[in-house]
Amino acid sequence: MTSQQIQQVLDGRWAHIRRAVRERLGSEFVTVPGETGPEARERISRLIRSVPTDVGVAAAFPSRYGGSDDPGGSTVAAEMLAQVDLSLMVKAGVQWGLFGGAVVALGTERHHEAYLRDIISADLMGCFAMTETGHGSDVQQLRTTCVYDPATETFDLHTPHQAARKDYIGNAAKDGRMAVVFAQLITGGRSYGVHAWLVPIRDERGDPMPGVTLGDAGAKAGLLGVDNGRISFDHVTVPREMLLDRYGQVAPDGTYSSPIENDSRRFFTMLGTLVRGRITVGGAAAAATRSALTIAVRYGETRRQFTGPGFEREVLLNDYLAHQRKLLPALATTYAYAFAQEELVATLAEGPADEHGQRELESRAAGLKAMQTWHATRTIQLCRESCGGAGYLAENRLPGLKADTDVFTTFEGDNTVLLQLVAKGLLTGYRDAFGSLDGWGRATFVAEQVREMVLERTAARSVIQRLVSAVPGRDEEVAVTDRGWHLSVFEDREKHLLEGAIRRLRNGAATRKDQPFEIFNDVQDHILKVATAHIDRITLEAFVAGIERATDPDARALLAKLCDLYALSVIEADKGWFMEHGRLTPARSKAVTAVVNDLLRDLRPHMTTLVNAFAIPEEWLNAAILREEPDRQEAMAKEDEASRSLLVA
Amino acid sequence: MTSQQIQQVLDGRWAHIRRAVRERLGSEFVTVPGETGPEARERISRLIRSVPTDVGVAAAFPSRYGGSDDPGGSTVAAEMLAQVDLSLMVKAGVQWGLFGGAVVALGTERHHEAYLRDIISADLMGCFAMTETGHGSDVQQLRTTCVYDPATETFDLHTPHQAARKDYIGNAAKDGRMAVVFAQLITGGRSYGVHAWLVPIRDERGDPMPGVTLGDAGAKAGLLGVDNGRISFDHVTVPREMLLDRYGQVAPDGTYSSPIENDSRRFFTMLGTLVRGRITVGGAAAAATRSALTIAVRYGETRRQFTGPGFEREVLLNDYLAHQRKLLPALATTYAYAFAQEELVATLAEGPADEHGQRELESRAAGLKAMQTWHATRTIQLCRESCGGAGYLAENRLPGLKADTDVFTTFEGDNTVLLQLVAKGLLTGYRDAFGSLDGWGRATFVAEQVREMVLERTAARSVIQRLVSAVPGRDEEVAVTDRGWHLSVFEDREKHLLEGAIRRLRNGAATRKDQPFEIFNDVQDHILKVATAHIDRITLEAFVAGIERATDPDARALLAKLCDLYALSVIEADKGWFMEHGRLTPARSKAVTAVVNDLLRDLRPHMTTLVNAFAIPEEWLNAAILREEPDRQEAMAKEDEASRSLLVA
Repeated sequence: MTSQQIQQVLDGRWAHIRRAVRERLGSEFVTVPGETGPEARERISRLIRSVPTDVGVAAAFPSRYGGSDDPGGSTVAAEMLAQVDLSLMVKAGVQWGLFGGAVVALGTERHHEAYLRDIISADLMGCFAMTETGHGSDVQQLRTTCVYDPATETFDLHTPHQAARKDYIGNAAKDGRMAVVFAQLITGGRSYGVHAWLVPIRDERGDPMPGVTLGDAGAKAGLLGVDNGRISFDHVTVPREMLLDRYGQVAPDGTYSSPIENDSRRFFTMLGTLVRGRITVGGAAAAATRSALTIAVRYGETRRQFTGPGFEREVLLNDYLAHQRKLLPALATTYAYAFAQEELVATLAEGPADEHGQRELESRAAGLKAMQTWHATRTIQLCRESCGGAGYLAENRLPGLKADTDVFTTFEGDNTVLLQLVAKGLLTGYRDAFGSLDGWGRATFVAEQVREMVLERTAARSVIQRLVSAVPGRDEEVAVTDRGWHLSVFEDREKHLLEGAIRRLRNGAATRKDQPFEIFNDVQDHILKVATAHIDRITLEAFVAGIERATDPDARALLAKLCDLYALSVIEADKGWFMEHGRLTPARSKAVTAVVNDLLRDLRPHMTTLVNAFAIPEEWLNAAILREEPDRQEAMAKEDEASRSLLVA
Repeated sequence: MTSQQIQQVLDGRWAHIRRAVRERLGSEFVTVPGETGPEARERISRLIRSVPTDVGVAAAFPSRYGGSDDPGGSTVAAEMLAQVDLSLMVKAGVQWGLFGGAVVALGTERHHEAYLRDIISADLMGCFAMTETGHGSDVQQLRTTCVYDPATETFDLHTPHQAARKDYIGNAAKDGRMAVVFAQLITGGRSYGVHAWLVPIRDERGDPMPGVTLGDAGAKAGLLGVDNGRISFDHVTVPREMLLDRYGQVAPDGTYSSPIENDSRRFFTMLGTLVRGRITVGGAAAAATRSALTIAVRYGETRRQFTGPGFEREVLLNDYLAHQRKLLPALATTYAYAFAQEELVATLAEGPADEHGQRELESRAAGLKAMQTWHATRTIQLCRESCGGAGYLAENRLPGLKADTDVFTTFEGDNTVLLQLVAKGLLTGYRDAFGSLDGWGRATFVAEQVREMVLERTAARSVIQRLVSAVPGRDEEVAVTDRGWHLSVFEDREKHLLEGAIRRLRNGAATRKDQPFEIFNDVQDHILKVATAHIDRITLEAFVAGIERATDPDARALLAKLCDLYALSVIEADKGWFMEHGRLTPARSKAVTAVVNDLLRDLRPHMTTLVNAFAIPEEWLNAAILREEPDRQEAMAKEDEASRSLLVA
């Protein structure tokens, strides 16, 4: 079956983990639609302790403590958990990704020895206390302080004012016993920037530790099973050895030392080690999108509405062009991101070769997180609407998928800020991405430093080069379905946008050197478009590389058609830009739309195959509208047809 | 103050009703974020009985029963209720709009005499039982039957199979005691199409009546305060006089008579009398959009993130171009729809002059409902994201606004089906919109019947004509901010799209006469675009007319700039089409984007004024992030600044 052949390609390198999660997480793990907040928290708190760790959720931990040194496997496991229940995935992400991951990446052996086993077993539940009420995007500016006192050889951890309290922190409201707390490290009267400490926040009975105030973030739009909360510290004493000191050490006498001289560079290096969180969120959003599409496509394959001359039965929703226009490009894009995500995870798993590679990994993680989470929000909404009133009922899963994933667009980095980070990396050719997490800063600097871009390809370099080279010079001669043309058009758009941004920033810097914010702000929309064009390109290249991995000819042909639809949907959506810049003639632009419609017709019979290839276990889907037996459905349809005969002609 | 001057224009003809609701619905009516389903149902069931009816909620009822014969006023009152609490608005809409409205419009004096007083006082709570599980969009095909028996002079109301049960029915799960039930009327062995009966569904104790099965639709994404449910009938006996018989009567002997001969025409005439529901939903979506924008704009005016050289403080979110790009076009569009909605309500209030006018009213109600509800979904999402993590907390209202309004895109008519209705009305010049609620039917017929379109203007005809006439022939010579150019471009786009659709349908009909579904389906995307272009045009014309009503020069100037932004945002979003069709040169298209950015800069200082003009009472907004006192905010900002000095340079 073609769907199984495609599933094999999608399952990819971590197929064993996907298989394990599918097999081992049975009905007791499945989302319970419509439960109350307290019910959800209770259920998820219970389940997090019974997730079998050998399905990959702890894969990123060192093998000597029970992991398998496989960060790629752990992100894939998290993605699979997201298909079971998004609260469970986020809870797992907090515990094993953010909290446990920070202890691994920022701590040293004594921390690992003392805590990792209990973290993996979930006996020690923890928090990742970075975000503050006042600072979420600009985390270099956190206000919590941790001041070293050589007399007592302890730190004094303190929340100076309300806006400095830790906010939205997962596990803080109920389950967390310790927290990795991010604060400004001050010793000898000097601040060395943000560092992290491992701090107990609850005692054995679950009561707050002295000086620690814990609050509940209260009702949220979704993720009801996650106990997000607030943490404040009133001069809490923290032993010296609880500093997670891989990147910065404080000697008993208070002397600070670090392998990285520059405070800002050190901070971004520390943040960089936590890149897995963003990759996981992108993957989780994609998993939820696949669930929603599976529900909507399968519903559209049984739901009929409106009859017409020449038809014995009412028309299936999936047969309407407008319905195909909603679901099929979203499906194609979902495939495209699946391939891009797989490639990103592979890069994480292999470990970047150098600092340049690390910056590129961070940039792609940021960009794909932004694009996949926005795609999830849009697509789940489309799926909800495609199921009509049924889509609004909790029992049909779509409300939960929508509400749970909504926050993904702003957590683990606000999407707009992340795209800016991507663009800055491109502007500076990844040479100086440090400090690039700030909102706009150093525009003048950037404008002076930028160099001509060199497109960096990761996926299927040679295949892509061959396809691009085969494209004749004049666009008009090439079919709009030519893959080489797609690739070169995506590449050209990115390059042109980037060069334009560089030019505008340089002009700004030349004429209004004293207004760096204005220089940057005037081109902010342009800069964001650079980032999306870049991610579009690497996504298309990943799709092309993915097709190469398909061995079955039918699967290959279907994926190629879907790739056509993805590429042409992107071009169609941005046809204004292509015409403005002489990349498309009006006639060719119209041809793109016509070919998109042709592709919808061609792909229509394969919609079910394409969602079946996501291989989501039936019990995970858990949507009442899919639960009717086919026989019963047919019987209902027959009854319905019979009753039509009563109606007015 | 400019905001008050603008408020006056927005409040418009029903300012007295807006004022009354603002003054009379105090804190006890305000949304309670984060409540459970049962809590919400209990609260709303209680509140619906204490809404003061003299604020306009019963205005549409005849004055002899306690109303004021003012359907316009009742839609405005419902819109205002939506700003207080969307569940309350929907509950009110079910009770006084759908249920009460159907009794008024479809019933005759004996029904009015017997029930209207109790309906107005909410002593008799009722349902509008039209939608069935199997038929929501194509309601002409409802499967419930109601068969007359002259021997007993009663009807037999029956649900023949599961897909024919009434579904998603407001008030059915808990509060409804009667229902207006839509079913196929059969007498003398012939069906006369869908009619409505007034049927008791619960006895005095709240138990189901004999033969009636009531169910609960269960947990929903939002609108938790509304008790949606399911109703099935097992051969329920309904007395002859309970037929709402304004449009069709059954004599004791079973003889059917009607003032309207044609069954289909009769059915759509009956539906047409219920147009108020759609107008109300559009208005409610707009009210929620205004609440969300008020919260996001005011938050963006206090929230700062990221510092930079030359800045003493961090930058306000509203100062970022990307933030303005999110909020300001949405704000401009919200104003545009407010004017279009006011005009639509005025048309409803005046009553259409003839059948043509009635068809046009229905078409505009359908189109503006679709556009306003999609705009609400998109904009509330943008506002949620613009508030970051805070936007995900129930206490900040955005999750509730989002979840509650979500269903508006598919209830009271699925938006896609509604836009198709609009397009068909245009294709047939409103001459034969009967039957146009079907999904696609009679494409051949339509293609043969279409005539050249004549643009029909309602608003400010002479002003618009003057502005359009003043535009010189060649576009290039006109400033992109020229109002006449905007108007002529919107008009030209609609006309060209419509003519293109006609041509394609005609060609299809000529070449594949035996495939009417395919003829239609091939152009479905084109047809939907005709509808949006049409609604865009009437919306712009309404905005232009609205500016004329502003007397204060500052208010007028600000509204004019906002109208520029609305018009150019629409053009920018569709610039691909304009270039494809030679309506914009690439250079001029780029100029549009540049001018949009200039407008954002110009309008930036007025964002607060523009949301203040919505005049939403502070206690209705009810968002924790807005609740801090300005003094306290300033103090927090100062503390925050002070703590910055501790940080690494």
